[in-house]
Amino acid sequence: MNHTATPASPRTQVRRGATNANYERGTLHAIIDDAYLCHIAFSDKHGVHCIPTACWLEGEHLYIHGSNGSRMVKRLLEAECCVTITHLDGLVMARSAFNHSMNYRSAMIYGRFEVVDDEAAKRATMEVFMEKLAFGRQAQVRPGNDKEYAATTVLRIGLEEAACKTRTGGPNDDEEDMSWPVWAGELPFARTRLAPIQHEACTIAAPDYVEAWQKG
Amino acid sequence: MNHTATPASPRTQVRRGATNANYERGTLHAIIDDAYLCHIAFSDKHGVHCIPTACWLEGEHLYIHGSNGSRMVKRLLEAECCVTITHLDGLVMARSAFNHSMNYRSAMIYGRFEVVDDEAAKRATMEVFMEKLAFGRQAQVRPGNDKEYAATTVLRIGLEEAACKTRTGGPNDDEEDMSWPVWAGELPFARTRLAPIQHEACTIAAPDYVEAWQKG
Repeated sequence: MNHTATPASPRTQVRRGATNANYERGTLHAIIDDAYLCHIAFSDKHGVHCIPTACWLEGEHLYIHGSNGSRMVKRLLEAECCVTITHLDGLVMARSAFNHSMNYRSAMIYGRFEVVDDEAAKRATMEVFMEKLAFGRQAQVRPGNDKEYAATTVLRIGLEEAACKTRTGGPNDDEEDMSWPVWAGELPFARTRLAPIQHEACTIAAPDYVEAWQKG
Repeated sequence: MNHTATPASPRTQVRRGATNANYERGTLHAIIDDAYLCHIAFSDKHGVHCIPTACWLEGEHLYIHGSNGSRMVKRLLEAECCVTITHLDGLVMARSAFNHSMNYRSAMIYGRFEVVDDEAAKRATMEVFMEKLAFGRQAQVRPGNDKEYAATTVLRIGLEEAACKTRTGGPNDDEEDMSWPVWAGELPFARTRLAPIQHEACTIAAPDYVEAWQKG
Protein backbone atom coordinates (compact mmCIF):
# COMPACT_ATOMS: atom_id res chain seq x y z
CA MET A 1 0.00 0.00 0.00
CA ASN A 2 1.01 3.54 -0.75
CA HIS A 3 1.10 5.61 2.40
CA THR A 4 1.45 9.08 0.93
CA ALA A 5 -0.96 11.53 2.44
CA THR A 6 -3.60 13.49 0.55
CA PRO A 7 -3.77 17.22 1.30
CA ALA A 8 -7.11 18.34 2.72
CA SER A 9 -9.40 20.35 0.45
CA PRO A 10 -11.99 22.82 1.82
CA ARG A 11 -14.48 19.94 1.69
CA THR A 12 -12.30 17.26 3.23
CA GLN A 13 -10.79 19.36 6.02
CA VAL A 14 -12.19 17.66 9.10
CA ARG A 15 -13.50 20.31 11.48
CA ARG A 16 -15.39 18.40 14.17
CA GLY A 17 -13.34 15.80 16.02
CA ALA A 18 -10.26 16.78 14.05
CA THR A 19 -8.09 14.52 16.19
CA ASN A 20 -9.86 11.64 14.42
CA ALA A 21 -8.96 12.93 10.96
CA ASN A 22 -6.67 10.82 8.82
CA TYR A 23 -5.45 11.66 5.35
CA GLU A 24 -3.16 8.65 4.93
CA ARG A 25 -3.56 6.92 1.61
CA GLY A 26 -3.10 3.48 3.16
CA THR A 27 -5.95 4.08 5.60
CA LEU A 28 -8.23 5.11 2.75
CA HIS A 29 -7.34 2.04 0.69
CA ALA A 30 -7.90 -0.28 3.64
CA ILE A 31 -11.33 1.20 4.42
CA ILE A 32 -12.47 0.76 0.80
CA ASP A 33 -10.97 -2.74 0.59
CA ASP A 34 -12.89 -3.79 3.69
CA ALA A 35 -16.19 -2.55 2.23
CA TYR A 36 -18.69 -4.21 -0.07
CA LEU A 37 -21.00 -1.21 -0.09
CA CYS A 38 -20.70 2.55 -0.15
CA HIS A 39 -23.35 5.25 0.17
CA ILE A 40 -23.44 7.88 -2.57
CA ALA A 41 -24.97 11.32 -2.09
CA PHE A 42 -26.05 13.11 -5.25
CA SER A 43 -28.74 15.58 -6.18
CA ASP A 44 -31.25 15.90 -8.97
CA LYS A 45 -34.42 17.90 -9.52
CA HIS A 46 -36.17 15.93 -6.76
CA GLY A 47 -33.55 16.84 -4.15
CA VAL A 48 -30.65 14.98 -2.60
CA HIS A 49 -30.44 11.20 -2.54
CA CYS A 50 -28.33 8.77 -0.55
CA ILE A 51 -28.07 5.43 -2.32
CA PRO A 52 -26.20 2.31 -1.22
CA THR A 53 -24.35 0.47 -3.95
CA ALA A 54 -21.64 -2.15 -4.30
CA CYS A 55 -18.09 -0.83 -4.67
CA TRP A 56 -14.53 -1.99 -5.06
CA LEU A 57 -11.04 -0.52 -5.16
CA GLU A 58 -8.64 -0.76 -8.06
CA GLY A 59 -5.52 1.35 -8.02
CA GLU A 60 -6.39 4.94 -7.18
CA HIS A 61 -10.11 4.70 -8.03
CA LEU A 62 -13.28 3.48 -6.36
CA TYR A 63 -15.50 1.59 -8.81
CA ILE A 64 -19.25 0.99 -8.95
CA HIS A 65 -21.52 -0.52 -11.57
CA GLY A 66 -25.15 -0.21 -12.52
CA SER A 67 -27.74 -0.64 -15.22
CA ASN A 68 -27.28 1.78 -18.08
CA GLY A 69 -30.68 3.33 -17.58
CA SER A 70 -30.52 3.88 -13.85
CA ARG A 71 -31.19 7.36 -12.57
CA MET A 72 -28.11 7.28 -10.40
CA VAL A 73 -25.75 6.24 -13.20
CA LYS A 74 -27.01 9.05 -15.43
CA ARG A 75 -26.87 11.66 -12.73
CA LEU A 76 -23.43 10.73 -11.41
CA LEU A 77 -21.96 11.52 -14.81
CA GLU A 78 -23.48 15.01 -14.79
CA ALA A 79 -22.45 16.38 -11.42
CA GLU A 80 -20.19 15.93 -8.44
CA CYS A 81 -21.13 13.63 -5.60
CA CYS A 82 -19.90 12.38 -2.27
CA VAL A 83 -19.13 8.70 -1.65
CA THR A 84 -18.98 7.53 1.96
CA ILE A 85 -18.02 4.23 3.53
CA THR A 86 -18.41 3.63 7.26
CA HIS A 87 -17.40 0.59 9.29
CA LEU A 88 -18.81 0.52 12.83
CA ASP A 89 -16.28 -1.18 15.12
CA GLY A 90 -17.85 -0.76 18.53
CA LEU A 91 -19.65 1.23 21.19
CA VAL A 92 -17.58 3.22 23.66
CA MET A 93 -18.96 3.28 27.19
CA ALA A 94 -17.76 6.31 29.14
CA ARG A 95 -18.47 7.21 32.77
CA SER A 96 -20.57 10.20 31.71
CA ALA A 97 -23.47 9.95 29.28
CA PHE A 98 -22.04 12.85 27.28
CA ASN A 99 -18.70 11.14 26.57
CA HIS A 100 -20.15 7.96 25.11
CA SER A 101 -18.89 7.40 21.60
CA MET A 102 -18.46 4.86 18.84
CA ASN A 103 -15.37 3.33 17.27
CA TYR A 104 -15.46 3.45 13.49
CA ARG A 105 -13.50 3.81 10.29
CA SER A 106 -15.02 6.07 7.66
CA ALA A 107 -13.94 7.46 4.32
CA MET A 108 -15.45 10.25 2.24
CA ILE A 109 -14.59 10.83 -1.38
CA TYR A 110 -15.66 13.89 -3.34
CA GLY A 111 -15.58 14.22 -7.08
CA ARG A 112 -17.26 13.19 -10.30
CA PHE A 113 -17.57 9.67 -11.61
CA GLU A 114 -16.44 8.81 -15.12
CA VAL A 115 -17.47 5.91 -17.33
CA VAL A 116 -15.01 3.10 -17.87
CA ASP A 117 -15.71 2.89 -21.56
CA ASP A 118 -12.70 0.93 -22.70
CA GLU A 119 -14.23 -2.51 -23.11
CA ALA A 120 -11.17 -4.44 -21.97
CA ALA A 121 -10.71 -2.24 -18.90
CA LYS A 122 -14.41 -2.55 -18.09
CA ARG A 123 -14.32 -6.34 -18.20
CA ALA A 124 -11.03 -6.50 -16.32
CA THR A 125 -12.29 -4.43 -13.40
CA MET A 126 -15.52 -6.42 -13.17
CA GLU A 127 -13.24 -9.42 -12.72
CA VAL A 128 -11.39 -7.57 -9.95
CA PHE A 129 -14.79 -7.11 -8.29
CA MET A 130 -15.67 -10.81 -8.63
CA GLU A 131 -12.31 -11.82 -7.20
CA LYS A 132 -12.92 -9.52 -4.25
CA LEU A 133 -16.28 -11.18 -3.59
CA ALA A 134 -14.89 -14.71 -3.88
CA PHE A 135 -11.27 -15.24 -4.79
CA GLY A 136 -10.91 -17.79 -7.58
CA ARG A 137 -14.56 -17.72 -8.63
CA GLN A 138 -14.16 -15.71 -11.82
CA ALA A 139 -12.68 -18.74 -13.58
CA GLN A 140 -15.64 -20.90 -12.53
CA VAL A 141 -18.75 -18.87 -13.29
CA ARG A 142 -20.52 -18.51 -16.58
CA PRO A 143 -18.76 -15.36 -17.76
CA GLY A 144 -20.61 -12.24 -18.78
CA ASN A 145 -21.67 -12.15 -22.42
CA ASP A 146 -21.69 -9.18 -24.76
CA LYS A 147 -25.35 -8.41 -24.11
CA GLU A 148 -24.83 -8.40 -20.34
CA TYR A 149 -21.77 -6.19 -20.54
CA ALA A 150 -23.59 -3.86 -22.89
CA ALA A 151 -26.40 -3.44 -20.35
CA THR A 152 -23.98 -2.57 -17.54
CA THR A 153 -22.21 0.71 -16.95
CA VAL A 154 -19.02 0.69 -14.89
CA LEU A 155 -18.09 3.98 -13.27
CA ARG A 156 -15.06 5.09 -11.32
CA ILE A 157 -14.13 8.04 -9.16
CA GLY A 158 -10.60 9.17 -8.34
CA LEU A 159 -9.40 9.30 -4.75
CA GLU A 160 -7.77 12.73 -5.02
CA GLU A 161 -10.26 14.53 -2.80
CA ALA A 162 -10.78 12.16 0.08
CA ALA A 163 -10.52 12.04 3.85
CA CYS A 164 -10.86 9.40 6.49
CA LYS A 165 -12.04 9.65 10.06
CA THR A 166 -11.34 6.85 12.49
CA ARG A 167 -11.74 6.28 16.19
CA THR A 168 -10.29 3.41 18.19
CA GLY A 169 -9.79 2.67 21.85
CA GLY A 170 -11.59 3.25 25.10
CA PRO A 171 -13.51 6.19 26.54
CA ASN A 172 -12.10 9.66 27.06
CA ASP A 173 -13.75 10.75 30.27
CA ASP A 174 -13.32 14.04 32.03
CA GLU A 175 -11.00 13.81 35.02
CA GLU A 176 -13.76 14.61 37.50
CA ASP A 177 -15.85 11.67 36.22
CA MET A 178 -13.17 9.00 36.58
CA SER A 179 -14.34 7.85 40.00
CA TRP A 180 -18.00 7.53 38.98
CA PRO A 181 -18.98 3.95 39.90
CA VAL A 182 -19.90 2.61 36.47
CA TRP A 183 -18.28 0.09 34.16
CA ALA A 184 -16.32 1.73 31.35
CA GLY A 185 -14.79 0.29 28.22
CA GLU A 186 -15.53 -0.87 24.70
CA LEU A 187 -18.27 -3.12 23.36
CA PRO A 188 -16.78 -4.19 20.01
CA PHE A 189 -18.56 -5.28 16.85
CA ALA A 190 -17.22 -7.38 14.01
CA ARG A 191 -18.60 -8.30 10.62
CA THR A 192 -18.44 -12.07 10.69
CA ARG A 193 -19.25 -14.79 8.21
CA LEU A 194 -21.97 -17.32 8.84
CA ALA A 195 -22.17 -20.81 7.32
CA PRO A 196 -22.58 -20.81 3.53
CA ILE A 197 -26.05 -21.79 2.30
CA GLN A 198 -25.89 -23.99 -0.77
CA HIS A 199 -28.63 -23.35 -3.31
CA GLU A 200 -31.19 -26.13 -3.27
CA ALA A 201 -30.63 -26.95 -6.93
CA CYS A 202 -26.82 -27.02 -6.57
CA THR A 203 -25.02 -30.36 -6.55
CA ILE A 204 -21.50 -28.97 -7.03
CA ALA A 205 -18.99 -29.46 -4.23
CA ALA A 206 -18.05 -26.29 -2.35
CA PRO A 207 -14.84 -24.74 -3.72
CA ASP A 208 -12.02 -23.52 -1.47
CA TYR A 209 -13.40 -20.02 -0.97
CA VAL A 210 -16.74 -21.42 0.21
CA GLU A 211 -15.05 -23.93 2.52
CA ALA A 212 -12.90 -21.11 3.91
CA TRP A 213 -15.77 -18.59 4.22
CA GLN A 214 -16.46 -19.03 7.92
CA LYS A 215 -12.81 -19.44 8.81
CA GLY A 216 -11.82 -16.24 6.99
CA MET B 1 -44.95 -2.70 15.69
CA ASN B 2 -47.38 -1.00 13.40
CA HIS B 3 -47.54 -2.75 10.04
CA THR B 4 -49.47 -0.19 8.06
CA ALA B 5 -47.92 0.56 4.72
CA THR B 6 -46.67 3.95 3.60
CA PRO B 7 -47.74 5.07 0.12
CA ALA B 8 -44.84 5.64 -2.26
CA SER B 9 -43.99 9.23 -3.15
CA PRO B 10 -42.33 10.19 -6.45
CA ARG B 11 -39.01 9.96 -4.58
CA THR B 12 -39.64 6.71 -2.75
CA GLN B 13 -41.20 4.81 -5.63
CA VAL B 14 -38.64 2.08 -6.22
CA ARG B 15 -37.97 1.78 -9.94
CA ARG B 16 -34.97 -0.55 -10.23
CA GLY B 17 -35.43 -3.97 -8.68
CA ALA B 18 -39.00 -3.07 -7.75
CA THR B 19 -39.66 -6.63 -6.59
CA ASN B 20 -37.35 -5.79 -3.67
CA ALA B 21 -39.39 -2.76 -2.66
CA ASN B 22 -41.11 -2.79 0.69
CA TYR B 23 -43.27 -0.05 2.12
CA GLU B 24 -44.32 -1.87 5.29
CA ARG B 25 -43.99 0.23 8.40
CA GLY B 26 -42.78 -2.75 10.47
CA THR B 27 -39.91 -3.40 8.06
CA LEU B 28 -38.85 0.24 8.27
CA HIS B 29 -38.94 0.23 12.07
CA ALA B 30 -36.94 -2.99 12.25
CA ILE B 31 -34.23 -1.68 9.90
CA ILE B 32 -33.81 1.50 11.97
CA ASP B 33 -33.89 -0.42 15.25
CA ASP B 34 -31.10 -2.69 14.03
CA ALA B 35 -28.90 0.28 13.09
CA TYR B 36 -26.52 2.37 15.17
CA LEU B 37 -25.56 4.58 12.23
CA CYS B 38 -27.26 6.17 9.27
CA HIS B 39 -25.83 8.10 6.33
CA ILE B 40 -27.32 11.53 5.65
CA ALA B 41 -27.13 13.23 2.26
CA PHE B 42 -27.52 16.99 2.27
CA SER B 43 -26.21 19.84 0.19
CA ASP B 44 -24.65 23.20 0.90
CA LYS B 45 -22.67 25.73 -1.09
CA HIS B 46 -19.77 23.27 -1.37
CA GLY B 47 -21.91 20.55 -2.96
CA VAL B 48 -23.51 17.38 -1.66
CA HIS B 49 -22.25 15.58 1.43
CA CYS B 50 -22.82 12.10 2.79
CA ILE B 51 -22.17 11.98 6.52
CA PRO B 52 -22.46 9.01 8.86
CA THR B 53 -24.01 9.71 12.22
CA ALA B 54 -25.53 7.82 15.13
CA CYS B 55 -29.31 7.37 15.02
CA TRP B 56 -32.17 5.84 16.94
CA LEU B 57 -35.89 5.26 16.53
CA GLU B 58 -38.58 6.60 18.81
CA GLY B 59 -42.19 6.35 17.73
CA GLU B 60 -42.56 7.57 14.15
CA HIS B 61 -39.30 9.54 14.02
CA LEU B 62 -35.63 8.85 13.45
CA TYR B 63 -33.44 10.85 15.84
CA ILE B 64 -29.87 12.10 15.61
CA HIS B 65 -27.81 14.43 17.76
CA GLY B 66 -24.85 16.71 17.25
CA SER B 67 -22.94 19.71 18.49
CA ASN B 68 -24.89 22.93 18.17
CA GLY B 69 -22.32 24.49 15.92
CA SER B 70 -21.85 21.63 13.48
CA ARG B 71 -22.28 22.38 9.82
CA MET B 72 -24.57 19.40 9.37
CA VAL B 73 -26.90 20.33 12.22
CA LYS B 74 -27.29 23.86 10.87
CA ARG B 75 -27.82 22.75 7.31
CA LEU B 76 -30.30 19.97 8.10
CA LEU B 77 -32.65 22.54 9.59
CA GLU B 78 -32.59 24.63 6.42
CA ALA B 79 -33.32 22.09 3.70
CA GLU B 80 -34.54 18.61 2.94
CA CYS B 81 -32.23 15.65 3.09
CA CYS B 82 -32.14 11.92 2.58
CA VAL B 83 -31.32 9.51 5.40
CA THR B 84 -30.25 5.99 4.44
CA ILE B 85 -29.53 2.89 6.50
CA THR B 86 -28.16 -0.26 4.89
CA HIS B 87 -27.49 -3.63 6.48
CA LEU B 88 -25.44 -6.03 4.34
CA ASP B 89 -26.58 -9.59 5.04
CA GLY B 90 -24.60 -11.59 2.51
CA LEU B 91 -23.17 -12.21 -0.93
CA VAL B 92 -25.26 -14.13 -3.44
CA MET B 93 -23.29 -16.46 -5.68
CA ALA B 94 -25.09 -17.16 -8.95
CA ARG B 95 -24.02 -19.46 -11.80
CA SER B 96 -23.48 -16.47 -14.11
CA ALA B 97 -21.28 -13.53 -13.22
CA PHE B 98 -24.10 -11.15 -14.19
CA ASN B 99 -26.62 -12.59 -11.70
CA HIS B 100 -24.43 -12.25 -8.64
CA SER B 101 -26.08 -10.10 -6.01
CA MET B 102 -26.11 -9.14 -2.36
CA ASN B 103 -28.65 -9.69 0.37
CA TYR B 104 -29.41 -6.55 2.30
CA ARG B 105 -32.01 -4.49 4.15
CA SER B 106 -32.05 -0.79 3.40
CA ALA B 107 -34.25 2.14 4.31
CA MET B 108 -34.39 5.63 2.81
CA ILE B 109 -36.16 8.51 4.50
CA TYR B 110 -36.76 11.87 2.82
CA GLY B 111 -37.75 15.04 4.59
CA ARG B 112 -36.54 17.82 6.79
CA PHE B 113 -35.23 17.46 10.33
CA GLU B 114 -36.68 19.51 13.14
CA VAL B 115 -35.12 20.43 16.48
CA VAL B 116 -36.40 18.72 19.59
CA ASP B 117 -36.47 21.89 21.61
CA ASP B 118 -38.69 20.81 24.46
CA GLU B 119 -36.09 20.20 27.16
CA ALA B 120 -37.89 17.26 28.77
CA ALA B 121 -38.47 15.57 25.41
CA LYS B 122 -34.84 16.16 24.43
CA ARG B 123 -33.51 14.56 27.60
CA ALA B 124 -36.02 11.71 27.42
CA THR B 125 -35.06 10.72 23.88
CA MET B 126 -31.34 10.87 24.70
CA GLU B 127 -32.17 8.31 27.39
CA VAL B 128 -33.95 6.19 24.79
CA PHE B 129 -30.70 6.30 22.79
CA MET B 130 -28.58 5.28 25.79
CA GLU B 131 -30.93 2.42 26.59
CA LYS B 132 -30.62 1.26 22.99
CA LEU B 133 -26.84 1.25 23.26
CA ALA B 134 -26.82 -0.60 26.59
CA PHE B 135 -30.07 -1.45 28.28
CA GLY B 136 -30.01 -0.43 31.94
CA ARG B 137 -26.99 1.83 31.67
CA GLN B 138 -28.79 5.16 31.83
CA ALA B 139 -29.37 4.69 35.58
CA GLN B 140 -25.64 4.01 36.13
CA VAL B 141 -23.77 6.71 34.22
CA ARG B 142 -23.00 10.20 35.33
CA PRO B 143 -26.02 11.90 33.76
CA GLY B 144 -25.76 14.81 31.39
CA ASN B 145 -25.61 18.20 33.06
CA ASP B 146 -27.21 21.43 31.89
CA LYS B 147 -24.06 22.61 30.13
CA GLU B 148 -23.73 19.35 28.19
CA TYR B 149 -27.38 19.33 27.16
CA ALA B 150 -27.10 22.97 26.14
CA ALA B 151 -24.19 22.14 23.83
CA THR B 152 -26.10 19.32 22.13
CA THR B 153 -28.80 19.61 19.51
CA VAL B 154 -31.23 16.72 19.10
CA LEU B 155 -32.96 16.51 15.73
CA ARG B 156 -35.70 14.26 14.44
CA ILE B 157 -37.18 13.45 11.06
CA GLY B 158 -40.61 11.94 10.45
CA LEU B 159 -40.98 8.64 8.66
CA GLU B 160 -43.80 9.76 6.36
CA GLU B 161 -41.75 9.66 3.14
CA ALA B 162 -39.77 6.46 3.43
CA ALA B 163 -39.16 3.26 1.54
CA CYS B 164 -37.29 0.06 2.21
CA LYS B 165 -35.56 -2.29 -0.17
CA THR B 166 -34.62 -5.77 0.95
CA ARG B 167 -33.27 -8.90 -0.67
CA THR B 168 -33.06 -12.32 0.92
CA GLY B 169 -32.45 -15.82 -0.34
CA GLY B 170 -30.36 -17.55 -2.97
CA PRO B 171 -29.43 -16.71 -6.54
CA ASN B 172 -31.90 -16.12 -9.35
CA ASP B 173 -30.15 -17.64 -12.31
CA ASP B 174 -31.40 -17.79 -15.86
CA GLU B 175 -32.79 -21.21 -16.79
CA GLU B 176 -30.05 -21.84 -19.35
CA ASP B 177 -27.33 -21.30 -16.72
CA MET B 178 -28.68 -23.78 -14.17
CA SER B 179 -26.45 -26.62 -15.31
CA TRP B 180 -23.25 -24.56 -15.30
CA PRO B 181 -20.82 -26.52 -13.09
CA VAL B 182 -20.21 -23.97 -10.35
CA TRP B 183 -21.21 -23.81 -6.71
CA ALA B 184 -24.20 -21.52 -6.11
CA GLY B 185 -25.69 -20.17 -2.92
CA GLU B 186 -25.35 -17.54 -0.24
CA LEU B 187 -22.32 -16.41 1.75
CA PRO B 188 -23.96 -14.71 4.74
CA PHE B 189 -22.62 -11.95 6.94
CA ALA B 190 -23.64 -11.05 10.48
CA ARG B 191 -22.78 -8.18 12.76
CA THR B 192 -21.49 -9.96 15.82
CA ARG B 193 -20.27 -8.84 19.21
CA LEU B 194 -16.73 -9.44 20.36
CA ALA B 195 -15.54 -9.66 23.97
CA PRO B 196 -16.00 -6.42 25.93
CA ILE B 197 -12.76 -4.53 26.64
CA GLN B 198 -12.74 -3.07 30.12
CA HIS B 199 -11.06 0.32 30.38
CA GLU B 200 -7.68 0.03 32.09
CA ALA B 201 -8.67 2.44 34.84
CA CYS B 202 -11.99 0.68 35.51
CA THR B 203 -12.37 -1.50 38.61
CA ILE B 204 -16.17 -1.80 38.50
CA ALA B 205 -17.64 -5.26 37.91
CA ALA B 206 -19.27 -5.73 34.53
CA PRO B 207 -23.03 -5.15 34.69
CA ASP B 208 -25.56 -7.52 33.08
CA TYR B 209 -25.52 -5.87 29.66
CA VAL B 210 -21.73 -6.19 29.47
CA GLU B 211 -21.82 -9.82 30.62
CA ALA B 212 -24.52 -10.51 28.02
CA TRP B 213 -22.82 -8.58 25.20
CA GLN B 214 -21.24 -11.51 23.42
CA LYS B 215 -24.19 -13.80 24.07
CA GLY B 216 -26.66 -11.25 22.68
